[in-house]
Amino acid sequence: MRIILTGAGGFVGRHLARRLLARGPNGGRVERLVLADLEPPAFDDIRVRRVVGDLSDAAVRARLVADGADMLFHLAALPGGAATRDPALSRKVNLDGTLDLIEAMAAAHGGRTLPPRVVYTSTIAVLGHPMPALVDDATPLRPAMTYGAHKLMVEVALADYRRRGLVDPVAIRLSGILARPGGATGLKSAFMSDVFHALAAGRPYICPVSPAATIWAMSLDRCVDNLLHAARVDCALMPAGGAVTLPALCVSMGELIAAIARRLGADAGLVTHVPDGTLEAAFGAHPPLLTPAAEAAGFHHDGTLDALVESALATL
Amino acid sequence: MRIILTGAGGFVGRHLARRLLARGPNGGRVERLVLADLEPPAFDDIRVRRVVGDLSDAAVRARLVADGADMLFHLAALPGGAATRDPALSRKVNLDGTLDLIEAMAAAHGGRTLPPRVVYTSTIAVLGHPMPALVDDATPLRPAMTYGAHKLMVEVALADYRRRGLVDPVAIRLSGILARPGGATGLKSAFMSDVFHALAAGRPYICPVSPAATIWAMSLDRCVDNLLHAARVDCALMPAGGAVTLPALCVSMGELIAAIARRLGADAGLVTHVPDGTLEAAFGAHPPLLTPAAEAAGFHHDGTLDALVESALATL
Repeated sequence: MRIILTGAGGFVGRHLARRLLARGPNGGRVERLVLADLEPPAFDDIRVRRVVGDLSDAAVRARLVADGADMLFHLAALPGGAATRDPALSRKVNLDGTLDLIEAMAAAHGGRTLPPRVVYTSTIAVLGHPMPALVDDATPLRPAMTYGAHKLMVEVALADYRRRGLVDPVAIRLSGILARPGGATGLKSAFMSDVFHALAAGRPYICPVSPAATIWAMSLDRCVDNLLHAARVDCALMPAGGAVTLPALCVSMGELIAAIARRLGADAGLVTHVPDGTLEAAFGAHPPLLTPAAEAAGFHHDGTLDALVESALATL
Repeated sequence: MRIILTGAGGFVGRHLARRLLARGPNGGRVERLVLADLEPPAFDDIRVRRVVGDLSDAAVRARLVADGADMLFHLAALPGGAATRDPALSRKVNLDGTLDLIEAMAAAHGGRTLPPRVVYTSTIAVLGHPMPALVDDATPLRPAMTYGAHKLMVEVALADYRRRGLVDPVAIRLSGILARPGGATGLKSAFMSDVFHALAAGRPYICPVSPAATIWAMSLDRCVDNLLHAARVDCALMPAGGAVTLPALCVSMGELIAAIARRLGADAGLVTHVPDGTLEAAFGAHPPLLTPAAEAAGFHHDGTLDALVESALATL
């Protein structure tokens, strides 16, 4: 199996690359893994090929698909905060460049019988906010940020590509992945990861949402489990549009902070809350989440808050 | 008021241009009307400026928006059948070129306080098929053709443009407009218009769907009424996404043929039916349609089948 992974230099991409080199999505061996990003990670492994560059550049896309591939994990994206600051760049990367890449991959695949699987990381930002009292698979998709709008547009395009037989796409909508590396990442939801780093380091942390703020969360390792499942899931198990909101635990920041402190034997009092109303409305007001479509297709969340925290701390 | 109208050479565009020159959307006088198309119609009117060209050409878009405008009616599109045959061209015209035009218009508008109104003609093809037993404003949007997919992607983009304050968009989803000119137009739904022309000319007609086939229909004049209403409707009356499925009459082809024959004193027996299963499934299996959101915002269908037929025959 020959795999292309975009966004390979990112937090989720690096972890997925490591897991893919250990074992292919179907249990078999990965023959070649093309890692694409502005700074793709280096692995001492002859199966790895690095493609350095911006996917909005046609020459970079051409190099990426040149040798053909059986599968694409498309994780590369301009994240939410950065997309809001520069919507034109978001269009170039998150919409136009993404469609161009997938069309180029399909064209390069050309002669083969089965269209290549494309695993696309969409986002719960396609749901928009304010959210209804309960979110389930019937909740209308009304993105409230440019990032979510472009991700939803690609979901619609992928369903069309499937009908046209260009690719065999599976789109999964990710919640907050814990714990991302500290520091500025362009993600407005960074607070839910920053609290892990602060407590692990015994540093005080000013949390920009209240203890009552609710988030949807998944550990990095469980996220990668779900990406690997998306790579092999029978598309007949997926809903009509080919996109699912992944299961995630709905937890309050207060519960999360207490669970991290408990696990680390740290002082939860290191965290003080200075809520930013806009941020809390957009990222800290998540209602209960029901995801029967994803569960029927075999996707899972972390099970319990303690399991999530343990898993997140293990990959810190 | 200075207005740009794309797709001005089309069936709906020509009629809209005539109506706009007679009276502006708000009852006032139109100061300038820019008519854009590959072959825009000529009017002996100093207010009219013609821009000839393809909107996927940046130079054409620049000429179109150069002098600024208060309003854009964006009707230009590669129609459904043609879009299915050439999805790459559909992307260029119906998606990329459309977004580029609206962004260029917003950029040209720049300094002014209020963003310009954009009336966008979307389509019931965003709903997809097979349709549920009843379609209403909560029906999920799952386009089954490239044309509908691209139209839906633009709807999502327009909602984002509104949030960003670039333009003030209203998207209306059109049903079958009766009666389009005869002959090949690239529209798979041409049969519902062709039957008017055949009966008016006393010609036999082989209808590619059964008498029981159901369609959603609106007369040309009522369609233009709705376009003009979209130009002035208060966006606070529109649903969150800024797009509505327009009210339309749900009628069977048998009822439609009988009503046309009755009105013309023609022989309904001129029409024989040789149903094409694929075509009937896609264009002749429309369930009852409820459009409370559009009605609350002041949009209307023709009222009765006889009124629809009379109006359609008047513009034949």
